[in-house]
Amino acid sequence: MPPENPSETIGQPSGVIALLSDFGASSPYVAAMKGVIHSIHRQATIVDITHAIPAQDLRQGAWVLAEVARHFPAGTGFVAVVDPGVGSERGIVYACIAGRHFIAPDNGLLSRLAQESPPAKIVRLTEPEHWLPRVSATFHGRDIMAPVAARLSLGLDPDRLGTPQRSLVELEWPEIEVSPFGIRGSIRFVDSFGNLISDIPAKALSAAPDPQAMCVRCEGHEIRGLSRTYSDHPASTLVALIGSSGYLELAVVGKSAALLLGATVGTQVMVSW
Amino acid sequence: MPPENPSETIGQPSGVIALLSDFGASSPYVAAMKGVIHSIHRQATIVDITHAIPAQDLRQGAWVLAEVARHFPAGTGFVAVVDPGVGSERGIVYACIAGRHFIAPDNGLLSRLAQESPPAKIVRLTEPEHWLPRVSATFHGRDIMAPVAARLSLGLDPDRLGTPQRSLVELEWPEIEVSPFGIRGSIRFVDSFGNLISDIPAKALSAAPDPQAMCVRCEGHEIRGLSRTYSDHPASTLVALIGSSGYLELAVVGKSAALLLGATVGTQVMVSW
Amino acid sequence: MPPENPSETIGQPSGVIALLSDFGASSPYVAAMKGVIHSIHRQATIVDITHAIPAQDLRQGAWVLAEVARHFPAGTGFVAVVDPGVGSERGIVYACIAGRHFIAPDNGLLSRLAQESPPAKIVRLTEPEHWLPRVSATFHGRDIMAPVAARLSLGLDPDRLGTPQRSLVELEWPEIEVSPFGIRGSIRFVDSFGNLISDIPAKALSAAPDPQAMCVRCEGHEIRGLSRTYSDHPASTLVALIGSSGYLELAVVGKSAALLLGATVGTQVMVSW
Repeated sequence: MPPENPSETIGQPSGVIALLSDFGASSPYVAAMKGVIHSIHRQATIVDITHAIPAQDLRQGAWVLAEVARHFPAGTGFVAVVDPGVGSERGIVYACIAGRHFIAPDNGLLSRLAQESPPAKIVRLTEPEHWLPRVSATFHGRDIMAPVAARLSLGLDPDRLGTPQRSLVELEWPEIEVSPFGIRGSIRFVDSFGNLISDIPAKALSAAPDPQAMCVRCEGHEIRGLSRTYSDHPASTLVALIGSSGYLELAVVGKSAALLLGATVGTQVMVSW
Repeated sequence: MPPENPSETIGQPSGVIALLSDFGASSPYVAAMKGVIHSIHRQATIVDITHAIPAQDLRQGAWVLAEVARHFPAGTGFVAVVDPGVGSERGIVYACIAGRHFIAPDNGLLSRLAQESPPAKIVRLTEPEHWLPRVSATFHGRDIMAPVAARLSLGLDPDRLGTPQRSLVELEWPEIEVSPFGIRGSIRFVDSFGNLISDIPAKALSAAPDPQAMCVRCEGHEIRGLSRTYSDHPASTLVALIGSSGYLELAVVGKSAALLLGATVGTQVMVSW
Repeated sequence: MPPENPSETIGQPSGVIALLSDFGASSPYVAAMKGVIHSIHRQATIVDITHAIPAQDLRQGAWVLAEVARHFPAGTGFVAVVDPGVGSERGIVYACIAGRHFIAPDNGLLSRLAQESPPAKIVRLTEPEHWLPRVSATFHGRDIMAPVAARLSLGLDPDRLGTPQRSLVELEWPEIEVSPFGIRGSIRFVDSFGNLISDIPAKALSAAPDPQAMCVRCEGHEIRGLSRTYSDHPASTLVALIGSSGYLELAVVGKSAALLLGATVGTQVMVSW
């Protein structure tokens, strides 16, 4: 994840704290975390990334976090809570990645970020003095991660959070397969319009001798060539294009590609040339 | 839209930026826009109006924007993204309306606001120096509108955004029909309680010789007279009243009028006297 | 509700205003309230608790408000709008409870908070000079409660809001029943994971001679002993534990207990020992 903003010194907080979880969009659990943050840092600016990650779907959480974090200023703190192992021996970590500060369970949630840009620092949270006085067994987002993020945003040195750690737990991702004749990937995200965002990056498609002759196949449907944007075609046309995150995306003009193709996260996409 | 707050000089930003879109309530696209705004204006106060406008429903977006914007302070910036033509030749505009600053595609989204209060200034966005360095073909909300709104909120002169424009693209709205015997209108908005908000303004009803004798008809149901509020009647009563936005509203006490009547946006409402 | 933060003097606002309502998560009504607040107090920090309280469900609103409010800093203002009687003779009140400031219709919405911690002050809102100039009959959240909360957050003395009042309207709550052999309670909240949070507090279970021998029954299912956290058991196990709010909670590891048990708010839970 290349910082879009000139990277500030590590540890210099922006005062912005961004939250991602699988708590559900209207969950009072999110509000509890915000209350805890404002109790420690009254002036913090809290932004919701999303709380609609499917329950305990680490891969979806990791994907969305990596896609969105790059747009936030350097020094932003992120609290990511998709935490099926809450209360178990899984660790909670601080990681500094691309000039931003991340707090999350060490369960792979940060691994896509770390794949794109190696962490400059990883600290396992072991110092309870920075947590709420009483820590529940089932809500570490509120009791550990939120107070730590609030204190970091006030300038707390990450080294004081616990013990250094060398690497993060990684998730297994289905890798795209590249051959001389094409690429096989899969759908990684479906947006609310039903657009299907794949894991095939634009630059992988540059191997194609003629982009306009390439053929994209998904669930029995076939698309010839890449479009520039949705509105280049009449309504209901199935198109392939490079989406706003830089990945191959399938869309139906004015409709839902997810519904039309019956495709979802994990569905295979095949590009051939 | 009459400013409820004394109008400040045009161009004097309040630091508040309000967002409306059809991205879906939990969309990471919204978070990306917020990240971009905070990257430029760290201290901006961002407020979500709603992101649940039905996909590409310009009329719904235009209606909600006009209803809500009047409650925000003068100098507030608004970014409205319902943008089926993203990447096409449709323009993106800045408009100063009733002392507030609007950024939107020029596709009619601002036309209800402009109908109520003529824009003091319209500028077509043509100067890429105020945008993100790389502009995608499918997400101008993030790449053009969010950075421009952030810079305006820091005091950028709107004239520097591009070239002056005389008028905005207008949407066709079904007009209410007034006769000596009554008014024909339609439902424009259904709230989460199932209350049906029509496009018949209170003042149009003042033509009725006796408000208590007027008859409101919708989907085969008939209501005699106007109520003052929901709780004036027992549960399950179908009532008509002047809603909080100043329009004729149909409601069922403690229940959903939308469900009971099978009515939705576009359903006809007939008032006779 | 014990203040988790050292209580500041009553009347000293934190500048944070937290909102709870049954308007629906994406309702423009919420945005209208925020616009009104920022029009009066530009710098207010507004936090959404939830707007997904089921329509007119006072008990659910009262429960969530009491659970979440304790996590906010002393001096926080809360506006709670679940208001089936809007426009009727029901009063609107200010109450200072556990160092925090609450504005709500006097219909029981504050009664769970008040049960836990007696209000230090109650004032019935009667002074329209602190409201919007025009007050609708159907949206007092926007026209009365939001402007009052904004003015309180700027330091307005609560005594100036109206006339003192001795007590708040109370809701009837199903009480838990304690016998020498166990406790009967019921489900009070279902979170988005489908975890079932009961009204049986941890301390009521301390009467059990052996916690690991206690038996929890709900909808024909039976659980032996309390778990510490979800992840102590394999996926799909039905467990009982003390949840993060300090109440007995039923959960299915990695799944929805609400679905598995067919349980919802009001469902009985029986603990025996």
